[in-house]
Amino acid sequence: MVREQITALRKEMKRAEITAYLVPTSDFHGSEYVGEYFQCRAFLSGFTGSAGTLVVMQDMAGLWTDGRYFLQAKEQLKGSGIELFQMEQEGVPTVVEFLADRLEKGDCLGFDGRVVNAEQAEEISEKLEKKGALVCSKMDLVDLIWKNRPLLSKEAVMVLDLKYAGVSREEKIAAIRQKMKEEGADYFLLTSLDDIAWLLNIRGNDVKCNPVVLSYLVMTKDQVLLFANLEVFSKEVEEELLQAGVWIRTYQEFYTFVQEIPEKMTVLLDKKRVNFAVVKSLSDGVNRIDKTNLTLLPKAIKNQTERENIKKAHQKDGAAVVKFIHWLKTQVSKERITELSAAKKLEEFRGEQEHYMGPSFSPIIGYGAHGAIIHYSATEESDCQIEPKGLVLLDTGGQYLEGTTDITRTVALGALTEEEKKYFTLVLKGNLNLGAAKFLYGCRGINLDYLARAPLWELGLDYQHGTGHGVGYFLNVHEVPNGFRYKWIPKKGESAVLEEGMLTSNEPGFYLEGKFGIRHENLILCVKDEKNGYGQFMRFETVTMVPFDRDAIVKELLTDRERQILNQYHRVVYQTISPYLEGAEKEWLSWATQEI
Amino acid sequence: MVREQITALRKEMKRAEITAYLVPTSDFHGSEYVGEYFQCRAFLSGFTGSAGTLVVMQDMAGLWTDGRYFLQAKEQLKGSGIELFQMEQEGVPTVVEFLADRLEKGDCLGFDGRVVNAEQAEEISEKLEKKGALVCSKMDLVDLIWKNRPLLSKEAVMVLDLKYAGVSREEKIAAIRQKMKEEGADYFLLTSLDDIAWLLNIRGNDVKCNPVVLSYLVMTKDQVLLFANLEVFSKEVEEELLQAGVWIRTYQEFYTFVQEIPEKMTVLLDKKRVNFAVVKSLSDGVNRIDKTNLTLLPKAIKNQTERENIKKAHQKDGAAVVKFIHWLKTQVSKERITELSAAKKLEEFRGEQEHYMGPSFSPIIGYGAHGAIIHYSATEESDCQIEPKGLVLLDTGGQYLEGTTDITRTVALGALTEEEKKYFTLVLKGNLNLGAAKFLYGCRGINLDYLARAPLWELGLDYQHGTGHGVGYFLNVHEVPNGFRYKWIPKKGESAVLEEGMLTSNEPGFYLEGKFGIRHENLILCVKDEKNGYGQFMRFETVTMVPFDRDAIVKELLTDRERQILNQYHRVVYQTISPYLEGAEKEWLSWATQEI
Repeated sequence: MVREQITALRKEMKRAEITAYLVPTSDFHGSEYVGEYFQCRAFLSGFTGSAGTLVVMQDMAGLWTDGRYFLQAKEQLKGSGIELFQMEQEGVPTVVEFLADRLEKGDCLGFDGRVVNAEQAEEISEKLEKKGALVCSKMDLVDLIWKNRPLLSKEAVMVLDLKYAGVSREEKIAAIRQKMKEEGADYFLLTSLDDIAWLLNIRGNDVKCNPVVLSYLVMTKDQVLLFANLEVFSKEVEEELLQAGVWIRTYQEFYTFVQEIPEKMTVLLDKKRVNFAVVKSLSDGVNRIDKTNLTLLPKAIKNQTERENIKKAHQKDGAAVVKFIHWLKTQVSKERITELSAAKKLEEFRGEQEHYMGPSFSPIIGYGAHGAIIHYSATEESDCQIEPKGLVLLDTGGQYLEGTTDITRTVALGALTEEEKKYFTLVLKGNLNLGAAKFLYGCRGINLDYLARAPLWELGLDYQHGTGHGVGYFLNVHEVPNGFRYKWIPKKGESAVLEEGMLTSNEPGFYLEGKFGIRHENLILCVKDEKNGYGQFMRFETVTMVPFDRDAIVKELLTDRERQILNQYHRVVYQTISPYLEGAEKEWLSWATQEI
Repeated sequence: MVREQITALRKEMKRAEITAYLVPTSDFHGSEYVGEYFQCRAFLSGFTGSAGTLVVMQDMAGLWTDGRYFLQAKEQLKGSGIELFQMEQEGVPTVVEFLADRLEKGDCLGFDGRVVNAEQAEEISEKLEKKGALVCSKMDLVDLIWKNRPLLSKEAVMVLDLKYAGVSREEKIAAIRQKMKEEGADYFLLTSLDDIAWLLNIRGNDVKCNPVVLSYLVMTKDQVLLFANLEVFSKEVEEELLQAGVWIRTYQEFYTFVQEIPEKMTVLLDKKRVNFAVVKSLSDGVNRIDKTNLTLLPKAIKNQTERENIKKAHQKDGAAVVKFIHWLKTQVSKERITELSAAKKLEEFRGEQEHYMGPSFSPIIGYGAHGAIIHYSATEESDCQIEPKGLVLLDTGGQYLEGTTDITRTVALGALTEEEKKYFTLVLKGNLNLGAAKFLYGCRGINLDYLARAPLWELGLDYQHGTGHGVGYFLNVHEVPNGFRYKWIPKKGESAVLEEGMLTSNEPGFYLEGKFGIRHENLILCVKDEKNGYGQFMRFETVTMVPFDRDAIVKELLTDRERQILNQYHRVVYQTISPYLEGAEKEWLSWATQEI
């Protein structure tokens, strides 16, 4: 039984003489998470994970996704006629390898060039050209078959006050202009939504949980043009932007503007982030500089105001999560709590905090075996009751005016097996050792990832996801160029040198399919340690403020050093969070943070 | 008082209208260590370290060298009028940055294009062109002023028997030809000496301690041409090579041959290794593929025979070093021993071993404060008596038909300070943890380097050199592409994924200027561990077989795990080496390898 959406697409493909049609998960801006209008891959395949690429041919349909989603995809693709390709597993071809293998001379690959970044599209085109196959990048076939397709989001835009942003948009624009000058660029095309929001100190709500504004931006030596839906700006916002020299144009005008950039002009753009259609719109006579977005590094290196605010946000968020964990552990044996109702309760606790703006991603609350589904998101169908035994994995986060949080705690609800406790502790060792690393400036995430994995690797075990990702400031919860991975994959752009002010997650895990999942996630801020003749030493400051569940720790598996790190962390958590609590909650925190 | 060599060079520079003259440490083959003919930088500057680049202008002369040689260079450059540039230190420009900064429009940089690799020469040319300065790469000015310059080495060539090489030259040539085919190359220019020796299973002695043959090689679809001094081949060797289709031409003919490669042909070469003059010799109409030498990876991944032989070589070498350390520790209070006489004694012990072919590098035997000079090499002037107290650093290695060894032990000669013991133990922790790493396939040296440095970094200390380098098989003691470093420097080509069969040194250290130096170096062979659903796990097998000095270890500073690793290693050392010993030596080894 093939999904009707796939059948409909195949009809359109035949009509358009397309051999294979490619549907990534993206919008016109290379966003990781996308608005409803852009959920083409989910619409076609039924797989709702946040990452995946669909390829449809007449005789096959395949979905590529990564380790976080193997179980979920298996489940959701059942009976759809769509084959699952588990990315980065031995023997599994990449999408590009697959296409290069299957397409023959005269075949044509179709896709919407607006939802594929220029670098990737060029790589695909090059590979297929070698085989004599063609690429047709101007077709949004899904649009033809998607009845009642949602409209493009157009949520109101807010200005982020200087006391939250730390640096004014005028200063940011001037700094980027200086860099344009150094690069010899006349135009800078910026199309990634979080970069635009960061640059202009504006926030919106056009992608679920990502407070961005659907827009494109062009900077020249004397102008900043913001292409967006005119309706979303209040008079006040428009005027404030205008004061900084930012002119608003309609969203649609952008491509026309790009087409009309005069020959001989030099345009700077980031092919990893700008879509293929944008690059194809440039006249041949325009010079191009392909360079990482000039905004990327200053956005990732949080300024002093942001750093202080981030700590405040994590105090409030910590208080909410502590209250929630206390509630969950005490109520689980007294009332019916499900994954969904727990998520709602946590949202209530967060909602009580000042300047809370909403979740930073869909909560992952996985009880028991659901915890092993790495990016599980409970639905009405999958929702299950949380019982007073075993482990529940809680990976959630919030948006505050003072920053974005992302925390995972795995909580014991009653009796645990020895196995659960053992792996809980092994994963904790990894988290503690990574968080306590001290290193010379120049190290990248790849230097330190081993610290988080070693306790599992020593036993021949692993978690099949990265150890950490960069986190935005009241922006996207996933941000580059910092991260922790053991593989060197320059394409992912997560391997930058760790700079003072970068905020990264530290989230090792362990998952036993059908049994349980464990993940311990803190956000850690890179700070300077001593500087001496050997160089500048760096370390991390953990900003997440919630205890790790003592009920699940096997003390004997921790080294003395690890115990010291844990006890010191718990001391700080108590000092920081107890002022937010009273009565039983405060008592519980005191117990939960006692020395072990 | 400027050195007369510099003054003489400046005169020649004026005559040739050269603004700046560049003298790297290299030969025509990009060798790290070079024959006497090629010691131009040492001749000019008086600095005898193995690595360094000299730049001479009329108003300055500067020598760039790395952390291993800072102290030595400081000493040797005293009063020479040559300024020391400490590479990779904050605020110190690279050679290229310096040149790009100092040379102006119309200026000319001179160098001998045969001793600069094509990649670097092109980078320099490009940078200088931007400033309007010129590059003249066809001048060996040193030759004009170096009276009694040594001749090019022409040592006899030997054939390496299949029982040592493991794979025949015919098989190797066929495999490389297959790769040429895959790359679409008609010609493969191979000019790096160790690659040529590896490919043809020949060894020579044209670079001190490096059993290579001064030669160039060209491979086509049906021919292999070896350009070398005809005198160095015996009739037998020549015939054996001819049987494998290898034709010998004179060393000088190579450039003419390259010039005459017909247009439209495709030539594969490695610009990081082939010199600039070679690339400039190619006609414009020749297609070039710049690619890492096809021989690099198969040479680095030791075959099964090589692996087994390497272990044998390390047993013999271990026996020699154990005898030496026993002799040193017992005799130091009884007879006059100096750094040079100790080196001679160790060479005697090695000389007693079967198939010993000579040292693999100049021995570094540094007593007390000399140990802090990272690549110290005792001279008649610097030689000092070794006394029955403190530490002596012994970094030496041997060439055997069964492989190349490289070992550092730091030995206590009597009473030690608490400081000496503490750092001895901290460095040992790093060595043990790196050697015991277990990791998923895909890791590179950069993933694991932290393990070796962590005990020092935690205290804000460091050693200013890499943690490890690849090692050849009865070839160069320094080999790429494997290594352990914390910085990602693709140019150095040491950051390859660790493959089964790669041999790498594990050599953390710690140096207190004016006091002592500590380094613990083992060679470790990458081997496969378990393979399961998570992937292929890898680990190291330590092949070096000499105990770490128990007299210097502070047991309390080791974790339980580290103690276990050490005790297990010492057990294997005793089992492996004791059969080579008798009497007092054997008793000593038994004591030296007891559990702690």
